Amino acid sequence: MMPPKNKIEVPDIVVSRLPLYLRALNFLAEEGVETISSAELAQRLGISSAQIRKDLSFFGEFGKQGTGYNVEFLRKKIKEILNLTRIWDVALVGAGDLGHALVHYGGFLGQGFRISLVFDNNPQKIGQEIAGLIIQPASRMKELIRQHGIQIAIIAVPASAAQKVTDELVAAGVRAILNYAPITLKVPPDVHVQYIDPVTRLQHMTYYLK
Amino acid sequence: MMPPKNKIEVPDIVVSRLPLYLRALNFLAEEGVETISSAELAQRLGISSAQIRKDLSFFGEFGKQGTGYNVEFLRKKIKEILNLTRIWDVALVGAGDLGHALVHYGGFLGQGFRISLVFDNNPQKIGQEIAGLIIQPASRMKELIRQHGIQIAIIAVPASAAQKVTDELVAAGVRAILNYAPITLKVPPDVHVQYIDPVTRLQHMTYYLK
Repeated sequence: MMPPKNKIEVPDIVVSRLPLYLRALNFLAEEGVETISSAELAQRLGISSAQIRKDLSFFGEFGKQGTGYNVEFLRKKIKEILNLTRIWDVALVGAGDLGHALVHYGGFLGQGFRISLVFDNNPQKIGQEIAGLIIQPASRMKELIRQHGIQIAIIAVPASAAQKVTDELVAAGVRAILNYAPITLKVPPDVHVQYIDPVTRLQHMTYYLK
Repeated sequence: MMPPKNKIEVPDIVVSRLPLYLRALNFLAEEGVETISSAELAQRLGISSAQIRKDLSFFGEFGKQGTGYNVEFLRKKIKEILNLTRIWDVALVGAGDLGHALVHYGGFLGQGFRISLVFDNNPQKIGQEIAGLIIQPASRMKELIRQHGIQIAIIAVPASAAQKVTDELVAAGVRAILNYAPITLKVPPDVHVQYIDPVTRLQHMTYYLK
């Protein structure tokens, strides 16, 4: 096996596809599939097999010519590459409809994430419980996030509040933000942001509709 | 003004950025800003001004050298390019926590979308009301979507049900799907799919964390 190349060299677009490979491998493992060719994996993912091989080659040699990928092995390796051999605690800011849906979402825990703190600034919500978590006052964000050593946060507040929340999260030590507010956030270069905005996704598609 | 180039030529990655430009222009319009330089717009978006100019050049000449972009004009033009001069009716499949949050989400209507049908296959949910919409049985999906001439759907069902739902939506005439189920969907080439999966977004970021 070739030594993995330096992480710095891997284009972000390649990193962005690794979770999709992992997701497909998880389904394959559930189905009891032990090996898969890059062609089959490509078909499942709608990504070319050349692209998959090229992406994975940044990290080593994971398949044998002619026999394809061992599902469990590749799954384990991608989890290691993505730092998913541990559970990451996540702070959620915003306990509205979306916040509730996220806390109740069953898909995080098996994939390396656990929402362990929930914040809101509405006095009517503070102290209430969602799925075993007590909603904490936004004023305690910095203190509690630091105390728990949390590096990842999800923002589910209105756009008007999102930048202020972001600044506080960054000050508290958060280094990765999943932002559901429909606004581009300003963050220091060492903080990563991913955006989830259904409106921009729908507008992308209407371009192609008549 | 140069004539716009043929739509076919525009790379999808360029199309994907137009909704972000529109979102920023909407905020600027709300703030009462009348003109903005590509440099200022770039700073707001975290995208280079060269990229913005290059993206927009696919569709014509929208800024004057030295005076920047007229916010209202550019906003109107991008809405035209993205086919957002009308309201698009959207069918939502899945009335769980996420489906409820989506129906209650206030961000769709002002941006060109209206959820006008909601489906679920749970007999306990069918006939109930969410924000004025009666939950319809999944068995009536094809009939009602055709009747309303709906081209856009949002899938908010478990991964295990998502492909079956997709096949039915496509058969009913849907041409654009926003998929919240954590699975890659198989669709014909003329059907567009966008994915929203918080887990893959979080996993993308943990790559960069220690």
